[in-house]
Amino acid sequence: MSGHFKNLLDTIGLPPGTLVHVGDKKLEKSLITIFDYDVDNFSEHTAETIEESFSFRDKPSITWINIDGIQETEVIQKVQSHFHIHPLVVEDITNTQQRPKMEDYGDYMYFVLKMLYIDSDTGGIESEQVSLILGSNYVISFQETVGDIFDPIRDRIRNFKGRVRKTGADYLAYCLIDAVIDNYFVMLELLDQQIEKLEDDLIMNPRQELYEEVHQLKRDMIFIRRQIWPLRELISGLQRTESPLIKPETHVYLRDAYDHAIQVIDTIESFRDILGGLHDVYFTSISNKLNEVMKVLTVISTIFMPLTFIVGVYGMNFKHMPELEWWFAYPALWMIMIAITISMVAFFKSRKWI
Amino acid sequence: MSGHFKNLLDTIGLPPGTLVHVGDKKLEKSLITIFDYDVDNFSEHTAETIEESFSFRDKPSITWINIDGIQETEVIQKVQSHFHIHPLVVEDITNTQQRPKMEDYGDYMYFVLKMLYIDSDTGGIESEQVSLILGSNYVISFQETVGDIFDPIRDRIRNFKGRVRKTGADYLAYCLIDAVIDNYFVMLELLDQQIEKLEDDLIMNPRQELYEEVHQLKRDMIFIRRQIWPLRELISGLQRTESPLIKPETHVYLRDAYDHAIQVIDTIESFRDILGGLHDVYFTSISNKLNEVMKVLTVISTIFMPLTFIVGVYGMNFKHMPELEWWFAYPALWMIMIAITISMVAFFKSRKWI
Amino acid sequence: MSGHFKNLLDTIGLPPGTLVHVGDKKLEKSLITIFDYDVDNFSEHTAETIEESFSFRDKPSITWINIDGIQETEVIQKVQSHFHIHPLVVEDITNTQQRPKMEDYGDYMYFVLKMLYIDSDTGGIESEQVSLILGSNYVISFQETVGDIFDPIRDRIRNFKGRVRKTGADYLAYCLIDAVIDNYFVMLELLDQQIEKLEDDLIMNPRQELYEEVHQLKRDMIFIRRQIWPLRELISGLQRTESPLIKPETHVYLRDAYDHAIQVIDTIESFRDILGGLHDVYFTSISNKLNEVMKVLTVISTIFMPLTFIVGVYGMNFKHMPELEWWFAYPALWMIMIAITISMVAFFKSRKWI
Amino acid sequence: MSGHFKNLLDTIGLPPGTLVHVGDKKLEKSLITIFDYDVDNFSEHTAETIEESFSFRDKPSITWINIDGIQETEVIQKVQSHFHIHPLVVEDITNTQQRPKMEDYGDYMYFVLKMLYIDSDTGGIESEQVSLILGSNYVISFQETVGDIFDPIRDRIRNFKGRVRKTGADYLAYCLIDAVIDNYFVMLELLDQQIEKLEDDLIMNPRQELYEEVHQLKRDMIFIRRQIWPLRELISGLQRTESPLIKPETHVYLRDAYDHAIQVIDTIESFRDILGGLHDVYFTSISNKLNEVMKVLTVISTIFMPLTFIVGVYGMNFKHMPELEWWFAYPALWMIMIAITISMVAFFKSRKWI
Amino acid sequence: MSGHFKNLLDTIGLPPGTLVHVGDKKLEKSLITIFDYDVDNFSEHTAETIEESFSFRDKPSITWINIDGIQETEVIQKVQSHFHIHPLVVEDITNTQQRPKMEDYGDYMYFVLKMLYIDSDTGGIESEQVSLILGSNYVISFQETVGDIFDPIRDRIRNFKGRVRKTGADYLAYCLIDAVIDNYFVMLELLDQQIEKLEDDLIMNPRQELYEEVHQLKRDMIFIRRQIWPLRELISGLQRTESPLIKPETHVYLRDAYDHAIQVIDTIESFRDILGGLHDVYFTSISNKLNEVMKVLTVISTIFMPLTFIVGVYGMNFKHMPELEWWFAYPALWMIMIAITISMVAFFKSRKWI
Repeated sequence: MSGHFKNLLDTIGLPPGTLVHVGDKKLEKSLITIFDYDVDNFSEHTAETIEESFSFRDKPSITWINIDGIQETEVIQKVQSHFHIHPLVVEDITNTQQRPKMEDYGDYMYFVLKMLYIDSDTGGIESEQVSLILGSNYVISFQETVGDIFDPIRDRIRNFKGRVRKTGADYLAYCLIDAVIDNYFVMLELLDQQIEKLEDDLIMNPRQELYEEVHQLKRDMIFIRRQIWPLRELISGLQRTESPLIKPETHVYLRDAYDHAIQVIDTIESFRDILGGLHDVYFTSISNKLNEVMKVLTVISTIFMPLTFIVGVYGMNFKHMPELEWWFAYPALWMIMIAITISMVAFFKSRKWI
Repeated sequence: MSGHFKNLLDTIGLPPGTLVHVGDKKLEKSLITIFDYDVDNFSEHTAETIEESFSFRDKPSITWINIDGIQETEVIQKVQSHFHIHPLVVEDITNTQQRPKMEDYGDYMYFVLKMLYIDSDTGGIESEQVSLILGSNYVISFQETVGDIFDPIRDRIRNFKGRVRKTGADYLAYCLIDAVIDNYFVMLELLDQQIEKLEDDLIMNPRQELYEEVHQLKRDMIFIRRQIWPLRELISGLQRTESPLIKPETHVYLRDAYDHAIQVIDTIESFRDILGGLHDVYFTSISNKLNEVMKVLTVISTIFMPLTFIVGVYGMNFKHMPELEWWFAYPALWMIMIAITISMVAFFKSRKWI
Repeated sequence: MSGHFKNLLDTIGLPPGTLVHVGDKKLEKSLITIFDYDVDNFSEHTAETIEESFSFRDKPSITWINIDGIQETEVIQKVQSHFHIHPLVVEDITNTQQRPKMEDYGDYMYFVLKMLYIDSDTGGIESEQVSLILGSNYVISFQETVGDIFDPIRDRIRNFKGRVRKTGADYLAYCLIDAVIDNYFVMLELLDQQIEKLEDDLIMNPRQELYEEVHQLKRDMIFIRRQIWPLRELISGLQRTESPLIKPETHVYLRDAYDHAIQVIDTIESFRDILGGLHDVYFTSISNKLNEVMKVLTVISTIFMPLTFIVGVYGMNFKHMPELEWWFAYPALWMIMIAITISMVAFFKSRKWI
Repeated sequence: MSGHFKNLLDTIGLPPGTLVHVGDKKLEKSLITIFDYDVDNFSEHTAETIEESFSFRDKPSITWINIDGIQETEVIQKVQSHFHIHPLVVEDITNTQQRPKMEDYGDYMYFVLKMLYIDSDTGGIESEQVSLILGSNYVISFQETVGDIFDPIRDRIRNFKGRVRKTGADYLAYCLIDAVIDNYFVMLELLDQQIEKLEDDLIMNPRQELYEEVHQLKRDMIFIRRQIWPLRELISGLQRTESPLIKPETHVYLRDAYDHAIQVIDTIESFRDILGGLHDVYFTSISNKLNEVMKVLTVISTIFMPLTFIVGVYGMNFKHMPELEWWFAYPALWMIMIAITISMVAFFKSRKWI
Repeated sequence: MSGHFKNLLDTIGLPPGTLVHVGDKKLEKSLITIFDYDVDNFSEHTAETIEESFSFRDKPSITWINIDGIQETEVIQKVQSHFHIHPLVVEDITNTQQRPKMEDYGDYMYFVLKMLYIDSDTGGIESEQVSLILGSNYVISFQETVGDIFDPIRDRIRNFKGRVRKTGADYLAYCLIDAVIDNYFVMLELLDQQIEKLEDDLIMNPRQELYEEVHQLKRDMIFIRRQIWPLRELISGLQRTESPLIKPETHVYLRDAYDHAIQVIDTIESFRDILGGLHDVYFTSISNKLNEVMKVLTVISTIFMPLTFIVGVYGMNFKHMPELEWWFAYPALWMIMIAITISMVAFFKSRKWI
């Protein structure tokens, strides 16, 4: 997983605002889809070039430009110059190592979000950056790859479901942010199942491999936490903003998104606590196993060492050992040895060692 | 307990405000009871349909509509449209995965609370969501199942006990919140007894099963904490609110509720600390046991290994071993071996090993 | 110690403000003492009935009514109605499960404090609730039992020592609060001695029983902390209050009380840290002991196992074993075995095992 | 590494503002380079004496004076008197034990930054102090040695890349601060690789030497954290400053630098968490190894102790032992011993010990 | 070290403001030295009685009265009445159990500081209280014993070094505070060396005695931290104060003192972290040692137990054991036993146990 930082260095030394795509180049060519709607009308189409979207900027209807793939820097550069975006914003869009944040540039607001999913191949947590630009009547969203988490929103726009068609661009932006947060719950539930399974396994049959899974999950939590923690600040800042871009009636929805974000963070903290407890369970368990093993060893040694000594005594070759001549010596010795064994066993039973 | 998150996903992708009951469908049909009272009059009846309650809205008396069972979404939808409730509130009422919170919608306030109880079958902690809507002259409460924690308040209204009949809807809402908090103390006392018993058992007779109980209690604490922690914020927000729905004379009662909430949170934190200390006690105890076992093994080995060696020496078949011929050799050897044993035992006694 | 919560439940379901004595009924009959003084005059007497104190309310002199024993609820009820105290205050006075707090009711202020002492019988930490009501020219104090911690203040009033006779009721209240805080230092010093002794014992001779004492002290700290921590907030709130009951010249004394409270809290935190360190010391120590034991076992085994093997070899009954015939074989074997033993011992000495 | 504090004492007892170079004297002679530029012109030269730079102070163009080597105190003293710098600033420049900080002196601002790099010889983390003085049209930077981290900025100035030539001294100062922060990412990536490698090694083959590396990395983190943590406060203070030296359009860049600083701090915290988890992994692993070893010992003992006892029995020299005469006794005993061994092995297999 | 609290109780029950010297009575007779200076003049003398200093109060020059030894309560009482000091201040001066703090009494400010030094006899950390009273043109300092940490300041006043002669009493007070802080660095460097040495020793040769030193250092850190932590608040309060006693130009020096205080606190926190890490290093190390010991035991047992069994077999006295007759049996058995030993050793080598 050395990759979490491996792209950080690519922009060092470049002047701020330089446009270099930093991240795994996931899509060769950007895919641009445009939704344009108001309460009465609705149009949707996939654009060949970014220029097709520019005509929508000055129309009063709400326009959502979704750009999947951020390695085509000329597309983003054109967006920048046409929508008068600050160079630093564009740098942040193309550098996928950002923390979630909100920045208010007056005419528009800029959001960085992190989508998290579990890679089905490796089982590891992967992160994808989603950038949003919210203008007075448009939203531009940037994703690293073609994703489906915004599909329900597309569906609502198309089919006039919910409030989205009746409200402004700020509500659309809220919907997109909320879709990202909702997506965390999918991941959290998978992690929850994984942790529960691990917990059961670890209590039933503690093994170092399982513990290494605990460690891996702890690392995942550290990673997830770093991606999600700033979200709290982002949405709370959004609630307190005085930007005219956010209409008063949207605030109640932001409060709802804030609640969801808190719930996600709470859950991650709980997972961390539970994983910490698993360490203790595992560790006491291997210590107990050691005790078990040592008891077996001690019981065996304590029974056989005296017996071996006794038979050793009568294996000596002294001339003058009267017992050796007695006809009842051998069976009597067996009696004695059986008595010793029984009393030893009784002693260990009383101590609950066996 | 994988269920804590299993319903989170059901509303993903739906537009905000969509009414889907999320949670275990505990009651097929909602049970609606209506209390209507002022200082002079009092009426109580169970409504067949929710519409029966609507006439009370515009009367000056205080009306308490209690709805047990939240899976009949049409009931809640009718409440919504008649009392002009925001769609998000209704979504929160039917989704029982909320955190405790307070939201001020101007005309009315909305509260989410969590009732906690110990399931008598499984011994696990269960949580039930209680929602309150406080209007100028009405309170609507929603519970997942038919419960009895509000019975004392019903009793007070019926019998003109306490201040409830003399005051407004805000005081009634306070009473309901306080009843929920009071209920936590029942659970805390049960947990306190459980922890004390576990503590005594663990000190007297440390076993891994007991430790797994400690772990389970820690998990329970994580769960309880997440349910109760936001309560502090809720009531503190309620104290600072400038909503005209909360009359000044109610503030002193809210302060009291706040004190109780803090006391609950303090107690949970103490439990967490105590359970953490139990880990240490248990762990030092199994380490000590290991020491005990090893001392027994070492004592036995140290006594019998030299003796076995000695008898082995005189079991050798060398032609020329003068000792074998001596008539006193055998009893002398016994003397020597007894002396060795006694000095070993004395040595271990001096080291306090036996 | 299951008792810390056992009285919590007694008031559940009662309307707020209901007067039920909650706590161990320590005194059957309340003991009422009245001090009335100003700079020139002073009177002191023990009242038979609470009514005797009522005449003082409207006199300009300062009146201190001390009530030891809070189970006579009619006494407290009379105080309530005569001094116009809020029902919730009275509920808090009789319910000894409160956290320390300050409440400003305009005409009067209400304080809950916790006196802590070490029970001389059980050695456990016990807590007693002290309630204060500060009016413009009177202070009413409530204690659970007859105590002596206010004796120095009585003495100062009687003998015109210090400033107390020259100042108002707020200064008297300060003196009472300060007496409670001063009393914590007595307990802290006892605990300090206990911890130091435990620390020395644990380093000299680590035993599980001592560790259980550490655990018990940790529990005590959790309990004490919960009792004292809110004091900080209480006094700090008192310093910031704008109530006319607190005269400006008293603020410098409150600052002093605040310093003392912080010092108490600091000390408790230090104790917690030290007790945490004792766990580590104890645990490394038992691990070291295990190492010692194992080294003894290993040394013994490593010396005697090869020797026992060698003598076993010459105990075999093969017809053709030339060594058995050699006249020098037996003494030579002794030489060899002694050489093996010496070199083993030298090896273990070099490894510092013995 | 005792050196982290070894220079702290050199200035004790001197009046504040005394100029004594504290730190390892890394450069005998200061190296002074001057960049002077505006949007149209640009000049660059290396000055022999510091006086050469003074003429630039009153020119309207932007002047960047970089001084590598701070042990030539007369150079710094001349800068102080010519640019009217406060004596405390100069003391801080020459004392390389400062924490990162920002100080606003009205006419100029003073910054202390810490450059961190991994010493290629020892592998340890080294720290170098960078001081900046930002005036209205000049920036003076002080480094302990000749470094190359500002080279990209020099390059941008020379080649008119980015915004630096078009803006003021505050943007230049931002660029220098950002260069220092960017440099942390280089170090973080190296540490990341080191931690990942250590993690893999520790899971594959846990050894105490590796653990000591973990400890060393933890110490490094403590050191790095202390150097970088104050940066957050520095930049956040810079964002909130009302100094006219910072132009409004620079604030968006400061916000970007703030994001980077937070990211650095987040990463360090993650590293600390991961290293803490490695302790747990290592420790459970050595405990498991102990269990493995003990199982081997117990299996061997449990198999051979009974067998040795049995053969000891028939080594006894009793006259009357009927078994010794039986012709089938010897092979039968072998059968019995083999059966015992097989059943023991089966028993241990069933317990998964072998 | 039971002494940290042993004087706390001496003032309990006394009215606030009572003058009782609390602490070890270190000096029988107070030593009073007076410095009086302005930019032109300077006089210094040792006063026999405190009255000699009173004439300076009303002179415009700056007067520094240093009083070493605080057990002569009449001296302090005279200071109190002459300089109109609040009784509580005097109580705090004589009670050496104060926390560092700043109190603004309008006409004068009062500071409590803690000097810390390592007792050369016991190696323990000792604390001495320094009190400062800052008036408009005088500073009165109180020390428990005759100390030398203010000597550099005396020297600067005598020899007109630095700014002290040119500025007011507030700068002098700053110098005294800074001298106390500077002194912490001496102690920190000694502790740093001690910790580094301990760390090296513990890694090279872990022993319980060393670990007890770690524990002692942790205790020292708890003690030091409690003494120094409030300093941050003190100086930060001083920076924000609006008292006319602190002139604006002194603020830049206070900022410097604040930086130093933070640096001291940071260093202590680092020490705490490092000492915590040492526990982990020590503990993994003794666990590893145990593993080593157990491997030796297991190797020895695994080699010699089978061999001893084999020779036991041929020590049996059965009549019918054909092997005993074979002439090659004995050397063949040796071959077999050597082969077993070699393969065992190879097996353990492959497992890296030897």
